Amino acid sequence: MTESVNLKEACSFLLEHDDYLILTHKNPDGDTLGCAYALCEALQSKGKKAGVACPDEIPEKYSYFIDGVSNNQSQEPGTVIAVDVADRKLLGKLYETYGDRVELSIDHHQTNTGFAKRTFVNPGAAACCENIYNIIRALGITLTDNMARALYTGISTDTGCFRFSNTTCDTHLIAAELMKYDINAGEINRIMFETKSRTRVELERIVLDNIEFYFNGLCSLIAVTRDIYKKTGCKDDDLEGITSLSRSIEGVVVGITLREREDGKFKASVRTYAPVDAAALCAKMGGGGHVRAAGCEIEGGLAKAKKLIIKNVKQSLCESGLL
Amino acid sequence: MTESVNLKEACSFLLEHDDYLILTHKNPDGDTLGCAYALCEALQSKGKKAGVACPDEIPEKYSYFIDGVSNNQSQEPGTVIAVDVADRKLLGKLYETYGDRVELSIDHHQTNTGFAKRTFVNPGAAACCENIYNIIRALGITLTDNMARALYTGISTDTGCFRFSNTTCDTHLIAAELMKYDINAGEINRIMFETKSRTRVELERIVLDNIEFYFNGLCSLIAVTRDIYKKTGCKDDDLEGITSLSRSIEGVVVGITLREREDGKFKASVRTYAPVDAAALCAKMGGGGHVRAAGCEIEGGLAKAKKLIIKNVKQSLCESGLL
Repeated sequence: MTESVNLKEACSFLLEHDDYLILTHKNPDGDTLGCAYALCEALQSKGKKAGVACPDEIPEKYSYFIDGVSNNQSQEPGTVIAVDVADRKLLGKLYETYGDRVELSIDHHQTNTGFAKRTFVNPGAAACCENIYNIIRALGITLTDNMARALYTGISTDTGCFRFSNTTCDTHLIAAELMKYDINAGEINRIMFETKSRTRVELERIVLDNIEFYFNGLCSLIAVTRDIYKKTGCKDDDLEGITSLSRSIEGVVVGITLREREDGKFKASVRTYAPVDAAALCAKMGGGGHVRAAGCEIEGGLAKAKKLIIKNVKQSLCESGLL
Repeated sequence: MTESVNLKEACSFLLEHDDYLILTHKNPDGDTLGCAYALCEALQSKGKKAGVACPDEIPEKYSYFIDGVSNNQSQEPGTVIAVDVADRKLLGKLYETYGDRVELSIDHHQTNTGFAKRTFVNPGAAACCENIYNIIRALGITLTDNMARALYTGISTDTGCFRFSNTTCDTHLIAAELMKYDINAGEINRIMFETKSRTRVELERIVLDNIEFYFNGLCSLIAVTRDIYKKTGCKDDDLEGITSLSRSIEGVVVGITLREREDGKFKASVRTYAPVDAAALCAKMGGGGHVRAAGCEIEGGLAKAKKLIIKNVKQSLCESGLL
């Protein structure tokens, strides 16, 4: 059983311990990385040792806030923390070493499994970086430009640049504070949202050619097979945003993106609009996430994966009164 | 010569006069409409008569903040105001009747030509709706949910949902204030940014098939001919956002979208990244706008239009030291 802690208790914990290893989730995004690097720098500025460990390779595009931070924790870290990690399984290849050793989990996912000894979850936060911002402020740490850049990145990426319904008053107030620093938010957003590689442009063209619709257009399905990966030369990095494309077509309430992984399994990303609960839909297939954005893994070939997910979409649409 | 007025003087003017007709610019967008309807409702709440006139048909998608406002100004209005209108030519078919009768222009375009008797320009405002928000607050008017919806829409649409570099601290602070009202920002942004009609999806596919690159990929050009309009059944409304697509490809510094109008003229929309000045580039062809987003009209066929604009792009790239 995990112990639920509040902001103040999380801060006390951080003050009382030292030699931190901060873990991010696998397939790292702006939020988990923004949290980890801002917190690492903040703890170091308090005289603590701290470092970050990420289960997967970090995409190049985040280097503007990562390059300035150096790990200085011991080989064998004293205190393991996880940021934006809802489930120990999401620790990927760090799971085996650290899965049972997380002392404090700082998160904003309602579905946090309570895998850590202590858990600070604030599901009202649009991004986990809002929690880290509040922790840094509560600890009286002076924000640096680099911390502000990291935190802004997490908030911006997890809210679709303040577009999604998870954005709150507080999200904008924190963004206003962060913009007082030398962060160049326009440039961050350009890197995160606007710039499409030529590969990505080609990918979109193929995807638009092959998108499928179900249930009178209430559901759209995009399948990115290994064949498409090969044909376009795209990497997972290029696929970010394709998932939101699936939901962006008029009338679509459930947008699904199936990505075939190298081992042949499919990673399903599900985006929904009210009243369909994406987390509940994915939970039926052993996954989870947020109410509007969730995911799961499906074994078997494309036909089988499609069949399974469409069956569950149908059930969700029926439960929601849309079918 | 126009008289430059500040916020306080603009407010005094609004208090001292009555029977307002508020003009928007042609091809109305979220900002000009948000300004007009929020100001109209605000003036009416101060006991003034006020109405809105728009030179073109208002796209259906803005109805959520427009439907609740009724015009109550006299047939022959006493005081004509323009909002978010940089040039009297942008009054379109209202130009002839009102072009010389604008008493107060409230704007945020640096390029405002000073066509009105009085001009309140705040080029630091990301959206003209920020000015209207400040005016409403300065006048001590209580915001309604509907005013907040209108103002949020203008701010969100003119900043690409807080993504563009025109977004400031103040933009986020105002957004935070507006989110205290019952505006459902997630839904507004879904309508404004996320939802693509099937027509639009088809259009994107054709556009991606036909995009051209110049100067080693520094410049991209998208041409939407009447033929494409016919083939896809798209309207101008569907084309919003295609302009930003042109600039969104890796390495592109100048993105151009040429839209063939029914009269055969081309409307060029230019989006740039630093150091290229879009307004200066368009000024060479008799147009204008903002430093990163501007436009102009070009006569003649597609080949001629392309040749002219590419010649000027080349010049701008040379001036910027990129060629």
